[in-house]
Amino acid sequence: PLDHSYSLTTGTTSTELLRKLNDQRDIIALMEVKMKEMKATIRQLRVTEAKLLEEVRERDRLVFALKQK
Amino acid sequence: PLDHSYSLTTGTTSTELLRKLNDQRDIIALMEVKMKEMKATIRQLRVTEAKLLEEVRERDRLVFALKQK
Repeated sequence: PLDHSYSLTTGTTSTELLRKLNDQRDIIALMEVKMKEMKATIRQLRVTEAKLLEEVRERDRLVFALKQK
Repeated sequence: PLDHSYSLTTGTTSTELLRKLNDQRDIIALMEVKMKEMKATIRQLRVTEAKLLEEVRERDRLVFALKQK
């Protein structure tokens, strides 16, 4: 949004802008690492979910077989 | 890392730096939205995992009870 845009104000030097630019770049790098970790967590949780669903199904088959006896 | 730092080079105007600064800010905003979505996904997957674990346990109890008969 425009209201949060950085704008040239008196006294904003190129050096200051560069410092901010590098600070933001560091933030982006940290966020990228964090997102990568979260993606791995989501992938792992989906694998676990599929495994547990299969375990529930296996037991359902077992319950069915036992009830047939 | 320093090797990727932005540095003042001839011809880099404050206007250009500002544009980059605003571009980065937009990227950060988008990443924040994405991270919020991923956090919600992880939370949901953990709830599902707990629910499925409980379902497996329930069926194990049922199988045990049926075998006792």
